[in-house]
Amino acid sequence: MARLAPLLLLAVTIMAPVSAQAEALVDNVNGMTLDADGKVVRFTGILMTADGKVVRLLGAKDKRPDRLDWRADMKGRVLMPGFVDAHGHVMELGFRALELDLSDTRSLDEAKAKIAAYVAANPDRKWILGGGWNQERWRLGRFPTAADLDAVVGDKPVWLARIDGHAGWANSAALREAGISAATVSPPGGRIEKGAGGKPAGVFVDAAQALMQKAVPQPLPKDRDSAFLKAQATLLSLGVTAAADMGTSVDDWLSYRRMGDRGALRVRIISYGMGIDDTVRIGGTGPTPWLYADRLRLAGVKLYGDGALGSRGAWLKAPYADAPGEKGLGFQTDTVLRNLMSRAAMDKYQVAVHAIGDRANAQVLDAIDELSDTYGGDRRWRIEHAQVVDPADLPRFGKHGVIASMQPTHQTSDRTMAEARLGAARLTGAYAWHTMLADGAGLAFGSDFPVESPDPFAGWAAAFTRQGADGMPPGGWRPEEAVTREQAWKAFTQGGAYAAFAETVFGRLAPGQRADFIIVDRDPLAASPAELRQTKVEETWVGGEKVWERK
Amino acid sequence: MARLAPLLLLAVTIMAPVSAQAEALVDNVNGMTLDADGKVVRFTGILMTADGKVVRLLGAKDKRPDRLDWRADMKGRVLMPGFVDAHGHVMELGFRALELDLSDTRSLDEAKAKIAAYVAANPDRKWILGGGWNQERWRLGRFPTAADLDAVVGDKPVWLARIDGHAGWANSAALREAGISAATVSPPGGRIEKGAGGKPAGVFVDAAQALMQKAVPQPLPKDRDSAFLKAQATLLSLGVTAAADMGTSVDDWLSYRRMGDRGALRVRIISYGMGIDDTVRIGGTGPTPWLYADRLRLAGVKLYGDGALGSRGAWLKAPYADAPGEKGLGFQTDTVLRNLMSRAAMDKYQVAVHAIGDRANAQVLDAIDELSDTYGGDRRWRIEHAQVVDPADLPRFGKHGVIASMQPTHQTSDRTMAEARLGAARLTGAYAWHTMLADGAGLAFGSDFPVESPDPFAGWAAAFTRQGADGMPPGGWRPEEAVTREQAWKAFTQGGAYAAFAETVFGRLAPGQRADFIIVDRDPLAASPAELRQTKVEETWVGGEKVWERK
Repeated sequence: MARLAPLLLLAVTIMAPVSAQAEALVDNVNGMTLDADGKVVRFTGILMTADGKVVRLLGAKDKRPDRLDWRADMKGRVLMPGFVDAHGHVMELGFRALELDLSDTRSLDEAKAKIAAYVAANPDRKWILGGGWNQERWRLGRFPTAADLDAVVGDKPVWLARIDGHAGWANSAALREAGISAATVSPPGGRIEKGAGGKPAGVFVDAAQALMQKAVPQPLPKDRDSAFLKAQATLLSLGVTAAADMGTSVDDWLSYRRMGDRGALRVRIISYGMGIDDTVRIGGTGPTPWLYADRLRLAGVKLYGDGALGSRGAWLKAPYADAPGEKGLGFQTDTVLRNLMSRAAMDKYQVAVHAIGDRANAQVLDAIDELSDTYGGDRRWRIEHAQVVDPADLPRFGKHGVIASMQPTHQTSDRTMAEARLGAARLTGAYAWHTMLADGAGLAFGSDFPVESPDPFAGWAAAFTRQGADGMPPGGWRPEEAVTREQAWKAFTQGGAYAAFAETVFGRLAPGQRADFIIVDRDPLAASPAELRQTKVEETWVGGEKVWERK
Repeated sequence: MARLAPLLLLAVTIMAPVSAQAEALVDNVNGMTLDADGKVVRFTGILMTADGKVVRLLGAKDKRPDRLDWRADMKGRVLMPGFVDAHGHVMELGFRALELDLSDTRSLDEAKAKIAAYVAANPDRKWILGGGWNQERWRLGRFPTAADLDAVVGDKPVWLARIDGHAGWANSAALREAGISAATVSPPGGRIEKGAGGKPAGVFVDAAQALMQKAVPQPLPKDRDSAFLKAQATLLSLGVTAAADMGTSVDDWLSYRRMGDRGALRVRIISYGMGIDDTVRIGGTGPTPWLYADRLRLAGVKLYGDGALGSRGAWLKAPYADAPGEKGLGFQTDTVLRNLMSRAAMDKYQVAVHAIGDRANAQVLDAIDELSDTYGGDRRWRIEHAQVVDPADLPRFGKHGVIASMQPTHQTSDRTMAEARLGAARLTGAYAWHTMLADGAGLAFGSDFPVESPDPFAGWAAAFTRQGADGMPPGGWRPEEAVTREQAWKAFTQGGAYAAFAETVFGRLAPGQRADFIIVDRDPLAASPAELRQTKVEETWVGGEKVWERK
C-alpha cells in the first residue's frame, strides 16, 4: 500500500494492517462439492484470495471479475474438494514405502522370497526392517515364526510389523539382540507368542512389541524427513489434501516442524499425539494453534483401548469364535483409561481412542459417559475404528455426539477374517456405518494408511457397495450398513474435517474455506463403483496452490 | 493494496507480493550505537518499517517524513541497541528463579536456613530442587555433604545444583531414591565425591550428576513454559534482547516453539542444541531457518570439553595448585571430540565447545586445526569460556577466526578462586580478553546466566575495569587484559550477533537491522564504572515493538 495520510502522534498507535485484496480464478471446471448439509453443489469457477481461500463459487452464467492476479483454465475437467483422511499414520506410510514391504505377498513362501531378495539387495543394513505381512491373507492358519525367518536370514536381525501394526515378527538373531528368552514375561496389554518349551515363537502382539523395539535402531532424523516426504507425495498423488495423524511422536512432530519451517509442508496434518506424554511434551498446556497457514496442528491425543482383530488383540465381551480361551487385550483398566482421558480433556486436548472389539468400545463409551459431566462443551470425543460394537452400545455414539472414525476398506479386507473371529451372531454391530449415521454419531472416514492404501476412491466405493475391488460378495456384505454415495463422500471430506475441529478451515469448497481441490479424470458421481475405483487424480491443489501433478 | 490492472491470462502466473511500505518513527532520542567498525554513532531518531526493521537513523537536522503510521516521542531519553548475551542458559535462568535459589547465601548456615524455610513453605513438593550454592563464596574450604543437608531435610529428597551447574548436592534421601551407594562407580567425565569408607559424600561433579538426575522428576511442560516466561521477563528487564542458549534440549526447544506459535516469544533466542543427538533431533540435516520473525533459530551444537574451575572439573595441562593429584576432567578423548565436531560440521551446524582449562582449550584448538582442512568456508568455530588458556595457545584463536565467547563477570567473581586453583604462573592466559582481540579472535561477551546475573551493565563495567562491583582490586586484576569501553560494548552487542551468524539481523542500529533497542536512565558512555553498573533499563523494544517497560 502507499503511505497513508500524514499522521504525527505523540503517543504510540499501531495501524491495522491492510489486507491484500488480490484475487485469483480457477475457471472452466466441471466443479462439484457438497454443501454443509451434504447436498451436491455444481460450479464452473472458484474465485479465491491471494492466500488461497475460496471467495465464492461461480456458475456458468456468473460474471468473472475484470481484475485478477492470475487465472487458471481447467478446460472443463472435473474438480472436487481434496479428501480428508480421518485416520492414518503419516510416518509409517513413508517408512513402509522406504523399507521392506510385504503387503503385496500372497503366501509365506512369496514373503520369504521377497525378504531374501531385499536382504541381498541391501547388504549394508545391519537390521532388516519392514512390515506389511498378514498371515490371514497368506491363509497360513497360524502366525509365522522365528524359524520361518531364520530359514531366510540367519546372520542379521529381522523385525517386521504386521499389516495393522498390532504385531511384529522377529527372527532368532533379533530375539538374541533384544535379550528375549523363554523366561521373558508378556507385559500388560501384550502377548509374546510361545512355542515348544515356552520359547518365544517369534511374534509379539501389541504391547509386547516394545520388548523388541527397544533393541531396534531408531531411524535418524534425516530418514524421518525422507519418510515424511515420501508419504506426502503418496497422499497428494491420491487426492488426499489433509490427514489426521493418529499417534504423532515427538520425533514425528519435529520432522513436521522441519518441513513447515522450510516451506516443504504441503499436505495438511492434524496431529493426535502418541499417548499423553508425547502430546503434552509437544503441546504443553493445550493444543497448538494452526501453524504454517493451516497445514499443521496438534489437536489432541491418541490413546489405545485394545489391539486388532487379525492378531486377536481386539478386546471382546465374549471369547473369540475361533479361539474360545481368548477375549483379546484390554490395554488398561477402566480407571486408568478414564484418568488418561481426563488428563487430556483437562487441558482441552481432543481425545481419540482406538477401540476395535465390543468390550473396548463399551469401555470408551462408559468413560465418555462419565467424563461428559465434567468436561462440557463441544468435545467431539473420537472412537477410532469403532469396528465391532455391541448393538446395544450403538445408540450411545449419538448420545454425546461421539465421532465414529471408521475405515470402509477395513470392512472389505477383513470380512472373512472377522466372520471367523466373531461368528455370524456378533456381526450385527460390526462396521455399522449406516446405523452410526442414523443414530447421530459424527461419521468420519479414513483408510488407516498404511494398513490399507490411502486411496480414497477405494474407500468411497467400498462405503456404498460393501464390496471389495473384486466386486465380492454379490450384493455387498451386510448391505444394510452401506451408506449412500453422497454420505460416504461427506464422511471422506467434511466428516474428517469436523472430526478434527477443522470444518471452518477445509473439507468442502465454500467461501472462507481453504481452496484445497483436486482435478480428476472422471465424474465420480456418475461413475460405476468399478469406474470410481479407477479414478486417477491429475492435479492436487492445497491452499490455492498446485502441489502435485501427474506426469 | 487495491486491485491491480486487469490481467486475464490463460496460463497461471503469480504476481510478486506488494510489500507494505508503512513507516514508523521513534523520535527525540539521545541515541547511540556502534557502527560495524566499532565507532560510536549518535542520532536523534530511528525511522523503521512496519515490520520493525531500521530504515535509517536520523540526526537532529534531518527532516522527518511527512507520512508515518506511528511516531513515538522519547523525550530526549537515552536509546541504545539491545544487548546480545553470547552465552546463557535460558530455561535454567527461569527454573533458578522458580525453585530454591541459594545464589545469595554467604555461608553454609545461611543456606541451611534458607533451605529449611523453603521446605516449610512448600510442603507439597516431593523433591526439593534448586541450585546456586557455591562453597567458595561460603569460604567452606570443602564441598558440602549429604550430612549437612540431612540435618535440615531428612524425610524427602533434596538435589541442588552448584552455581555453575557443574556439580550437584544431594541429601541421603535423594541418594537412596537414586540407588547410589559406596559401590557406585564414577562415570567417565564425572566424579562422585567420596566420604568415609568410600560412601558417597553427597556431591556429584560433572557427568556424575546424571546418576542422580535420572531419579529426579522431570519438570512438566507447563513448568518449562513458566520457567521460559520468567527467564524472558528477566532478560528483557535487563536490556537483553537476544541470547545464545547454550545447550537447548528437545524439551526446551518444544517450549520455545510453543511460545513462538502463540505469539509469546519476545526475546530472540539462538539455540545451540545440547549435544549431537538433541541437535539433530531438532534440526535434522542442518540448522533451522530464522523463525518467528527472527526470534528463534537452531544455529548449532553445544559440546563440552571439560568441567569448571570451582569444582576442579576444568581440565588442566598441569595439576591444580590446590590439589596436586588432580588435573580435572576431560570429557572425551581427542578422537571422540573430533568425531562429534565433524558430525556436526558435516551438516553445517555451528560448533560451540565449552572449554575452561588450558588442556581442554588446547584440545578444541587442535580439533579445529584438523577439521578446518575438511570443513572450509565461514565456520565460526566457537570456544565457550576460553577461560584458562596456555599463552602459547592464545594466537591459535585468531588463526581460524575462532570465536572466543567469554564472560567478564566470571573473571571478577572467580579471581580469588582462580588464583588458588592455578597459582600466579598460570594466570597469564586467563580471562585474556585484550590478547584475544589483539590476536584476531572473534570476541563475544555474555554472562553465562544463571551462573552470573544476566545484567549486561555489570559485565560491561567489569570488562574495561577488571574490577568487581566492590571496586576491588584497586587498579583492576591484571588490567593489561582489560578491553576499552567501546570494545566491551561491541562484544556485548554485535560481537554476540556475529558469533551466531546474526550480524545482518541484529546487534546494532543500522539500516536493515531489526529495531531492537532499549531506553536507559543514563548515558552509559559518560557514566563512571560505578554509575554504569547502576544503569536502569526503562523500556525494551524488540523488532520495533515495546515488549517491556519498567512499572
